[in-house]
Amino acid sequence: MSAIQSFPQLQETVARLFQSENFLQQPAELYAPIDYTLQLGGKRIRPVMLLASCQLFNGDIAKAYDSAVGIEVFHNFTLLHDDLMDHSPLRRGVETVYRKWDENTAILSGDAMLIMAYQYLCRKPSNRLHDIISTFNNMANEVMMGQQYDMNFESRDDVTVEEYLDMIYLKTAALFNGALRIGALIADAEESQLLPLHTFGRHLGLAFQIQDDLLDTFGNVTTFGKKPGQDIRDNKKTMLLITAIHKASPSQLDELQHWMAAPESDEKVEAVRAIYNSLHIAEDMEQHIASHYQQASQALESINAPDANKQPMQDLMQHLLHRSH
Amino acid sequence: MSAIQSFPQLQETVARLFQSENFLQQPAELYAPIDYTLQLGGKRIRPVMLLASCQLFNGDIAKAYDSAVGIEVFHNFTLLHDDLMDHSPLRRGVETVYRKWDENTAILSGDAMLIMAYQYLCRKPSNRLHDIISTFNNMANEVMMGQQYDMNFESRDDVTVEEYLDMIYLKTAALFNGALRIGALIADAEESQLLPLHTFGRHLGLAFQIQDDLLDTFGNVTTFGKKPGQDIRDNKKTMLLITAIHKASPSQLDELQHWMAAPESDEKVEAVRAIYNSLHIAEDMEQHIASHYQQASQALESINAPDANKQPMQDLMQHLLHRSH
Repeated sequence: MSAIQSFPQLQETVARLFQSENFLQQPAELYAPIDYTLQLGGKRIRPVMLLASCQLFNGDIAKAYDSAVGIEVFHNFTLLHDDLMDHSPLRRGVETVYRKWDENTAILSGDAMLIMAYQYLCRKPSNRLHDIISTFNNMANEVMMGQQYDMNFESRDDVTVEEYLDMIYLKTAALFNGALRIGALIADAEESQLLPLHTFGRHLGLAFQIQDDLLDTFGNVTTFGKKPGQDIRDNKKTMLLITAIHKASPSQLDELQHWMAAPESDEKVEAVRAIYNSLHIAEDMEQHIASHYQQASQALESINAPDANKQPMQDLMQHLLHRSH
Repeated sequence: MSAIQSFPQLQETVARLFQSENFLQQPAELYAPIDYTLQLGGKRIRPVMLLASCQLFNGDIAKAYDSAVGIEVFHNFTLLHDDLMDHSPLRRGVETVYRKWDENTAILSGDAMLIMAYQYLCRKPSNRLHDIISTFNNMANEVMMGQQYDMNFESRDDVTVEEYLDMIYLKTAALFNGALRIGALIADAEESQLLPLHTFGRHLGLAFQIQDDLLDTFGNVTTFGKKPGQDIRDNKKTMLLITAIHKASPSQLDELQHWMAAPESDEKVEAVRAIYNSLHIAEDMEQHIASHYQQASQALESINAPDANKQPMQDLMQHLLHRSH
């Protein structure tokens, strides 16, 4: 067993992994957009999470490097296709692939990225390969389902908080859970530890996504990397909107519904934000986020592992809690 | 060992596999297009090939059922995304997914299909799982590369026969070879048999694709299932066009180049077809096809397996040789 890596060390390890990988192959038309996407950086929180989970259970994180890259490649594949489907012009402050190249490039390069994720995951034989790939398959499938529910909700006015939480579980928390479980499988963690680990990932993912929704509406373009207010433009049924609909007075509800029926505009974003402000929606969201972080924290405490092994995961949580993008 | 299934019996087995599978899950918006695509039928030649390869090496084909479904799901995923990228309105005589639903549905359902292919492939643990998934990964990646080269060639005038053959190897023969190799791995075939099997799949795939190009230009809409002439409309660098450019007189070359620069129209299709006819391009293609079938046949003969086990594969070849779609 090598020494436990701290959270910043794990971040550094993951950064080095990506620097040493060569994603550029032939034909360049297929791989240049993949390399562009993967070298843009981003938080790389999922591969760090996978490694942190592996060392939580005393695993050798070097054995988890390929899977860590694979999970980040998968995540970036979803962003690449999502940006095309949402027609988002910017990601991490630069042009998205479908804008920099074209739609067909975004489709095919995205497909190749999904296959590449599986290539990283299966680079080396492992006696846990079946479990690892099954976990990855379930996770990937859940992310697709979450994306579909998210799209379905755009044209519905009656989305409940429960439905919203189920959707963001699939869209966001499932990927956290996939990363955590794969890290634990590589470390040969005991079966009994996988349930509290799942509870941890679930609450961490929910907190993360509610925070994401909050940042999308109230974030700052410089730190957030894209223009805020897109969820309002798209009538996304976020926790903010669902809560606002519940709390609104009859006249505020009329106003909200007026704006939801209106085409997208800066005025619409400003008006909906003003309603959110008068209803103290941001404060409500902060409470939800804090509550999920606390539940995640409790689940992590209940896992049977040395405190020193848990520290990097706790620091990862703190890092996510204080993020601005 | 159960008895060897004949080619029609294998077709029947594959048809029953698809009838007994339920591709419709929730959310229906995600899975209905997948079910629609997979229940349209088609030749199902790749899963039959996988099973035929398994029994070629005395394998238990029941162990290969999931992989057979997986390979067909993968193939249909590529068609779904290709139809979107090519804006093809018809497939197997009915509307393509992006036309029946919309572009985002085609993107996301296609992604979910690719994941579903991996789910079928990994349904059961196997001591050959690493080999099987690595084969599948390489194959899937080659198909993406082939698709990209095909797209690149559309805007080039100097594609050589060699480049064309490399491209269709990736686009078409790689999938045949993936199916054959996975079937052989499930049967625990000897390593030494995988090379002649690869040669067989390569020539069979090349013959199949040249035939496909021929049908695209000279096929009949009723039996072919889509409007012929699309390759001419798209300026696809098919074996027909490359051969015609080589054989054309200076005045015929001028005429060909005039039409390649022209926007797509029925007139363009007719004119290019007329040039092909005067140059006897269809006859040349028939010769290429026959030559690749013969080389495939020789490779099959050289495989160390009982004649009775080879018969279904030979019948599969004959079936492909005489197809009209």
